[in-house]
Parts: sequence; structure tokens; C-alpha cells
Amino acid sequence: MQALRFTNGKLGVERVPEPFDDREALVRVLKSGICNTDLEIARGYAGFHGTLGHEFVGVVERAADAPHLVGKRVVGEINAGCGNCADCRIGDSRHCPQRTVLGIVGRDGAHAEYLQLPARNLIEVPENVSDEEAVFVEPLAAACRIAEQVPIGPSTKVAIIGDGKLGLLCAMTTTLSSENVLLVGKHSEKLAIAGEVGVESILLDRLSESRHRTFDVVIEASGSESGFATALDLVEPSGKIVLKSTFHGTPTWAAAKVVVAEITIIGSRCGRFAPALELLAGAKVNVERLISDDLPLSRGVEAMERAGKGGILKVVLTP
Amino acid sequence: MQALRFTNGKLGVERVPEPFDDREALVRVLKSGICNTDLEIARGYAGFHGTLGHEFVGVVERAADAPHLVGKRVVGEINAGCGNCADCRIGDSRHCPQRTVLGIVGRDGAHAEYLQLPARNLIEVPENVSDEEAVFVEPLAAACRIAEQVPIGPSTKVAIIGDGKLGLLCAMTTTLSSENVLLVGKHSEKLAIAGEVGVESILLDRLSESRHRTFDVVIEASGSESGFATALDLVEPSGKIVLKSTFHGTPTWAAAKVVVAEITIIGSRCGRFAPALELLAGAKVNVERLISDDLPLSRGVEAMERAGKGGILKVVLTP
Repeated sequence: MQALRFTNGKLGVERVPEPFDDREALVRVLKSGICNTDLEIARGYAGFHGTLGHEFVGVVERAADAPHLVGKRVVGEINAGCGNCADCRIGDSRHCPQRTVLGIVGRDGAHAEYLQLPARNLIEVPENVSDEEAVFVEPLAAACRIAEQVPIGPSTKVAIIGDGKLGLLCAMTTTLSSENVLLVGKHSEKLAIAGEVGVESILLDRLSESRHRTFDVVIEASGSESGFATALDLVEPSGKIVLKSTFHGTPTWAAAKVVVAEITIIGSRCGRFAPALELLAGAKVNVERLISDDLPLSRGVEAMERAGKGGILKVVLTP
Repeated sequence: MQALRFTNGKLGVERVPEPFDDREALVRVLKSGICNTDLEIARGYAGFHGTLGHEFVGVVERAADAPHLVGKRVVGEINAGCGNCADCRIGDSRHCPQRTVLGIVGRDGAHAEYLQLPARNLIEVPENVSDEEAVFVEPLAAACRIAEQVPIGPSTKVAIIGDGKLGLLCAMTTTLSSENVLLVGKHSEKLAIAGEVGVESILLDRLSESRHRTFDVVIEASGSESGFATALDLVEPSGKIVLKSTFHGTPTWAAAKVVVAEITIIGSRCGRFAPALELLAGAKVNVERLISDDLPLSRGVEAMERAGKGGILKVVLTP
């Protein structure tokens, strides 16, 4: 089968054998989405080698221990745990120390014709959710994760830093809870998408000092050091900064400011898929608006280049 | 009067007029304690110029709007708020944007014969609490602040990084709630003090990797960049790091680790004085054990030098 792989420091679409471990389910990929994490892996930042991709929708072709799933359209939680640790025993493998992660840690990913995952990771997609929507379930779940970690109510003042895919998804989800959301970005055409869903937005260089120290919650979704500095400017004393982007490198930070103003910084990663699927099934968010391109898997390298360009939002691959 | 001051980039004991603003209470200082913040100010890190010191016990000599306090032995909350903002109106000036802070921001401090503070900042010291104990109320309150921010129960696994004054105070207070406290430091003679109060301790270079990722809560009280790195090693996924030291400079940090393991980092500064006074009155903590030296105020410069030496804990000044 074809797969978009990063091996020996090089990115390429290669022919590889189909997955064969019949203790896991085999999924034929319908669509996969390119995430910034894929771009970082392809820059050699993450130490992963193999098939990229962790956002997908597909059809189950084989599932020895879950035959009811065969033929079903599914999305899949990307963390595959050991099944034995305390986390796994309560059904949450997101922090299992032995976990593999689809296309990120020790497990081939979704930019391929087929992938495999434990059947327990798979969730059926409701009929009224399109493939183009379902491919967003993983990043949408990551956006939904925030509300599990930080209470957001109608009057909570929320700022989101970064107008990329993740920032826009965060804008779409937080505005369902709060009437006071501001998206801060550098691209007016992306900020306009926030406007379509009723979220106020502003260009970073128009952001006045009068808004400093006025937000209860700031979501850092730019993945940049300057984004974190902006978050520290905007958050009010005793406020919370949610780190939503896994930015690599080791940024500097004004630790004294965090202490003196008693800021709380909350790392936020993967979310549960069920709430994200519910939002899509209920048409509460318009994620298809975020697709910039849909290219065949055979053009995977070109698609990755496209995804890394300024102004481009989600690039989707179709095997 | 004599005062230990940092002015024009120089530290010295100077003769200055007594405080004279009769809208505030006048306190004759009995003892003041040297804090690492004083040392950082004297290194020019904090932009403060004037009389140093924010840990004290004294006797009220004048208090126009609180005559019942005159003649009473008091300690004093160090943040003096505007009195009008939302924080001040609920009686908590710790985050008032217009606040001055005793010996730290815009207000002469406690290493002097007299100081002034709003009468509402002063709290009477119970008779059975000695001057030597009362001078620890401010840093002890800062240690008690942690329990207001992070739930700590009998089975909570807590590691404290740093065996200085603040780390030892944190060890003394957290062991009142948790049976699983480990103090990590570099000085066996300081770690021995933790042993006296029943807290397990270990030298940093003996800390094995088997303890990595095993603590629910890690309290960073070393004020060093390497201390924060150690905290990131020790905290378990979804765990909490409390930043208790106001370290200056801009350390680098592995932001991706915070996101992937969903760590929460909590800035922690000043605490309320009442719980700290209760601990002292109830003889729940033995803070006098932390006094290395008690020198006359006239030898303030020498005292600051002593306080900055390795192996030295609290240096107290007596006017």
C-alpha cells in the first residue's frame, strides 16, 4: 500500500506492506488530515520515524475482537495504552507510560491506505457527519479538552492566541460556552473565519495595552515563544494560561511574572472523541470551513509543503 | 533612624527620617528577617530602591484609625492595596494592580527602626508566639498558601525542590497534611532539619530515575532553572508543579513536556497571615530552628552577606 513516511530524515510516499497484526483492528483510511505535529516530525523535531498522520476517518475491514465494527465508518483515539496500568484500567490511555501514539510515537500513522489500532480505540461516526467533518474529530477533541480542565462559563473572558487550525477550533468550541471570546492572530483572512462563527478577533499588532491583564483564561494555540509572551501579557492576575500547542524547543519565560501574579499554566493535549463527535452530529461547529485543500495521498509530499505555507489551514489527504 | 537601604545601586545602613504619614500605622520594629528577595533586590534584579525587608514583628506606636492596636505586638501583610479595586474591596490586596509592597515595590521596608503600613494590614501576635517565631509569619504564610491552591491530603505524594528557608518551611507545612513528602536539596546539614520534623529527604545527586514521574505535586522552592527541570522530571503526568520561588531571569523550559504530560504549573506567592499565626500559636512548626544568625541592624550589610552564603538559613536583624 501507499504511505506518507518520514524515514532516514526524508519525507516520501512509499510502498509498504499493509498492517498485519490481527490482534488489532484494520482500518481502510477514507481521509486523513495533516496536523502541525506532522510538520514538526518531518523537520526531525520529534524523533519519530515511520508513517505520519493521526487524524483520520476510515472503514473497519477486520476486527477479530470487535466483529460488530466491521464495515463501520470510524474515527480512532490515537493513544494505544498497555491495557494494564492504572490509567488504562480506567479506560484512559492518554498518559499510559508505555503507550504508543498513532503516527507520533512507536506506531505507524494514518497517511496511508490502511492503519491498525486496538478495536477499543475506535468510535463509530454518526451517519449525518461527513468524512470531511469526521477527519477533524481528533483536533476538535483536543479543543474540547480545554473545557474539561478549565471552567468556562458565559462571562469567562477568554483570549485565544493563534489563528491557525487549532486556534480556530478553540474559538469555535469556547464560544459555545463563553460570550467573551477574543481570537488574536496575524492573518486577517483567517480571523475572518472566527467572525463567521460570532467570535471577536483582532490582529496581534492592533492589540492595545488596555487589554493586558484582563482575561480570565488565555489559550496559547500559536506554538510560538512570542505567543506565550502575549499570553502572559493578556492574562489577569490569578488567571489561567492553557498551553494547547506542543511547541518544540525550549522557550524562555518570565518565571517571576508567573509567580508574582500567581498565574496557572495548564498543559492540554488530547481530548475524548465522544464530545467532539456530538458537536459535529449536532452541527454546533463548522469545521469543513477550515479545509484549504484535499489532495490524493500520492501527492503527500506536496500536501505537506502546502500545509506548511502561511495562509493555509487544513490540508486533507485521500488515499 | 537607622535603615538598611539599597539606593543608587549600593547597599548600606543609613540614617533617614522616621516614617511620617499619619494615615498609616507606625510600627517600631522588634525583629526583621532577611529573605532571598532582599538579596535579589540588592543585586539590582528587582528595580526597587529604598529600605529593604518585608518580614518583621514590631510594636504599634501610632495608628490613628485603629487606636486599639497601639502598644500591641504585630506582624503585617506586606501588600498595601488601593482600597478601591475589586480585589481590595473583598479585603485581599495581594493582586491589586496599584498595590505597594513593603520593601519590594514603592514602599520602604522593615529593616529599619520603624516602618509604616495601613493599620488594616496589621495582625496582633498571640502572647505565646516569640519574636523569633513571629518574624517567620510572612514566609510561613507563603508556604501555607500552597494548600489553598493545590489540594494536599494524607496520600498526596509531594516533592519539594530546594533545602533553603522556603523549602524547609514548605516541608514543615506540607507534612502536616501529607504523609508522603520528600525534600530534595544539595546540603545534608539542611536536609537534616527536615528529618527532625519527620520529612524524608534526599541529596539531589542521589535522586534516582526511579522516582521520576511519581509525584502528584512538586514544589519548586530553589529559585533555580535546574530546580524547575528537576520538578519536570519528578512530576507525574497530569501532576502539578507549584512555583514558590520568585526567580528572576528568563529560564528556558521544555514546553512540549508540559503539554504532552498535561502538567499544571501554579505560581504561588503571598499567603494569609492568620493560618500561619495559628500554626505558630499551636506549636505545629518549629521555625526558630531555621535561624542561623541574629545581628544588630547596624551590621545590616554584613548580615546580608551572611544571608547570601551557602549553608546559612535565616538571618534576623534586631534594631
